[in-house]
Amino acid sequence: MKVYRYPGKKAWKRLLARPALETKALDDIVLDIIEDIKLNGDEAVRKYTLKFDGVDISDARISQEEQEEALKNIDSKLKDAIKLAYDNIYRFHKEQVPEMMEIETVPGVKCWQKPIAIERVGLYVPGGTAPLFSSVLMLAVPATIAGCKEIVVCSPPNADGKLHPAIIFAAQISGVKKIFKVGGVQAIAAMSFGTETIPAVYKIFGPGNQYVTAAKQLVTRMGIAIDMPAGPSEVAVLADEFSDTRFIASDLLSQAEHGIDSQVILITTAESIISEVQKELERQLDSLPRKELAKESLINSRIFLVKSKQDMMELVNTYAPEHLIISTSDADILAEQVINAGSVFIGQYTPESAGDYVSGTNHTLPTHGYAKVYSGVNMDSYYKKITFQKISKQGLEKIGPAIEIMADAEQLTAHSRAVSLRLAKNNK
Amino acid sequence: MKVYRYPGKKAWKRLLARPALETKALDDIVLDIIEDIKLNGDEAVRKYTLKFDGVDISDARISQEEQEEALKNIDSKLKDAIKLAYDNIYRFHKEQVPEMMEIETVPGVKCWQKPIAIERVGLYVPGGTAPLFSSVLMLAVPATIAGCKEIVVCSPPNADGKLHPAIIFAAQISGVKKIFKVGGVQAIAAMSFGTETIPAVYKIFGPGNQYVTAAKQLVTRMGIAIDMPAGPSEVAVLADEFSDTRFIASDLLSQAEHGIDSQVILITTAESIISEVQKELERQLDSLPRKELAKESLINSRIFLVKSKQDMMELVNTYAPEHLIISTSDADILAEQVINAGSVFIGQYTPESAGDYVSGTNHTLPTHGYAKVYSGVNMDSYYKKITFQKISKQGLEKIGPAIEIMADAEQLTAHSRAVSLRLAKNNK
Repeated sequence: MKVYRYPGKKAWKRLLARPALETKALDDIVLDIIEDIKLNGDEAVRKYTLKFDGVDISDARISQEEQEEALKNIDSKLKDAIKLAYDNIYRFHKEQVPEMMEIETVPGVKCWQKPIAIERVGLYVPGGTAPLFSSVLMLAVPATIAGCKEIVVCSPPNADGKLHPAIIFAAQISGVKKIFKVGGVQAIAAMSFGTETIPAVYKIFGPGNQYVTAAKQLVTRMGIAIDMPAGPSEVAVLADEFSDTRFIASDLLSQAEHGIDSQVILITTAESIISEVQKELERQLDSLPRKELAKESLINSRIFLVKSKQDMMELVNTYAPEHLIISTSDADILAEQVINAGSVFIGQYTPESAGDYVSGTNHTLPTHGYAKVYSGVNMDSYYKKITFQKISKQGLEKIGPAIEIMADAEQLTAHSRAVSLRLAKNNK
Repeated sequence: MKVYRYPGKKAWKRLLARPALETKALDDIVLDIIEDIKLNGDEAVRKYTLKFDGVDISDARISQEEQEEALKNIDSKLKDAIKLAYDNIYRFHKEQVPEMMEIETVPGVKCWQKPIAIERVGLYVPGGTAPLFSSVLMLAVPATIAGCKEIVVCSPPNADGKLHPAIIFAAQISGVKKIFKVGGVQAIAAMSFGTETIPAVYKIFGPGNQYVTAAKQLVTRMGIAIDMPAGPSEVAVLADEFSDTRFIASDLLSQAEHGIDSQVILITTAESIISEVQKELERQLDSLPRKELAKESLINSRIFLVKSKQDMMELVNTYAPEHLIISTSDADILAEQVINAGSVFIGQYTPESAGDYVSGTNHTLPTHGYAKVYSGVNMDSYYKKITFQKISKQGLEKIGPAIEIMADAEQLTAHSRAVSLRLAKNNK
């Protein structure tokens, strides 16, 4: 990891810069696939699955048989772990269910806001280097709590043309009925426009590689909503002289092992821990199965030595990390000062991996600085809020004249007249 | 208006289709302007203001002098109307301020969700055919309630190089300090990347013409968030034989007068009212200053005669209108069955124009069927919600083994080790 000691504020933006997301370069390739699937449905999906995943799948549905097989093949300890994760994710998200709000702004003018679940949602679960069944829980549990009527899960098949049994099991216990072995751009396109087999949805959730990300961004121009734009995963760790350097190294590596483009940052007020963290990284790296990925990712990673906790918080709020681990002695106080982050892990015994799997919080989080403006996936992501109003004759008498004046000033005469006609009848 | 009597469900999608939004055709033109402003800042903004608005403006800031002048020039009745609107919008939005949520999912595992205001927001207020000062209130009042630190308003200058005094007044009473006379693509680009004069923001709100819409969509690929995609304004009115045809006609015209691309739909169970509404439309149309626009818009508008209230609700939920006026005798019951709409107006004395100006609800709403998945602008739009967690040693002992099992199954060894190391220390 590169070390920057006491960098001036003017240099922060440059030093914190993420690699540009080059989705645009992929647009043409991705658009062609989208258009093909929009036009040719299942047949085109099958073609691209053969091309990109190397398997020929005649029916993308996960059958009853495959579901039962998955249940048999999954290790019972893993089942129990997934169940515990399910319970906690359920609890944390259930508590967030948005409520109806009602108010009478003026006597006779009742206004309210009612959350209603989005009817159809599509959940994308990446395959690639690891079967990310935890993402199924993170996306499907809130969808079932919200009561979305149609919940579709798509995930790329492995070399045997199957999904990992844990992905199927996680979907089952989350209450998902429709699971398809389709991945990549073809999954995003199929869920956007529907095929003979795969239902169309209104909103697509879930992480993915650069092709999936480009596809998600492109379908937003075609009437589909997405959870959030995505980039490579990130962690920032805040540490002082009291932090445990072994824990720090393990947390940094948890991020680095995701892939070579992972963004890993350590910000510390203590010169003393820097070399110890570096040594510990090397020690722990060696025994990692994914050490080649992690090594590559660490090359682009950065350690910032700063003068004060204030600088530390300013720097990290400027960066807006997806994951923020605060392992300083005053972690609680610093946590209060967080303005921009996806999810925050406080204290020595709160590793990021807790939130990735079991604690209950969602792990689908804003990357690439989007934490300045986007939330991670949460219950709000599955609802839209509709406003209602009901005005009595008396209510309209009170606010009607103001409506007429404003509408006339905006030169919208019919708007004004919709009030005048009603007030006139009222006075009869 | 074209009348469709008892159309079969298979035809609904086609009959309800909106005109395609041709933003893509504009992309190249709009991208050039964005790139120019990103590179050349104020100088480029000035150039495009001269080109598109026909005025040469050396300083886009609204000066103290201009602010004072606006205060003098605005009619006192309009001032009072704007103040009443401000009060109600404030009340309705203040009530929505999201709260902190906290839960202990497992003893020792505390998880919470904290809403934090987005630091920098940009509010776009269209000029064009009318000075839409009401949009200033709708966008700025929730921003100040949320406590966004930087609130920027941009609106195109008129032929005299000025903003309408009501726009300045509405911004003032909403607590906005930074107002700029810049419109169109140049405003969106300036707020996205910042210029010497105009601050960069993280999220851009507000309606606009097709160029502004294209610019907003394009900057989402460059790291900027937007409130929602936008299309032409819409209303659907539900009516039965008890509805007042004069009110219906005035409500349909309130929408039609916005522009020739406005979408206006009437759904009724009563054949008897159709000809009366048509006659009333002609009668009221004649005295409208904007009658040419409204007439054009009505040509593309549709009346649907349906067999039952059930069909009525299914049809309107399929359409997902921006504005929905329910003026039937059983309006309250039907309102309960709304699944897809931006804002709903219930009963004979609740014209859409109430919500456009004074009742308190927001008028920035999802169009083009986006109401199936997007909310209108509301307090949530100005916050991101950050999750936090703090786990005790005992808490980690409870959930740690499940994390290890799941991480190992996902082949993410460092994730697992971040727990193991902590549990080992714990057991010392």
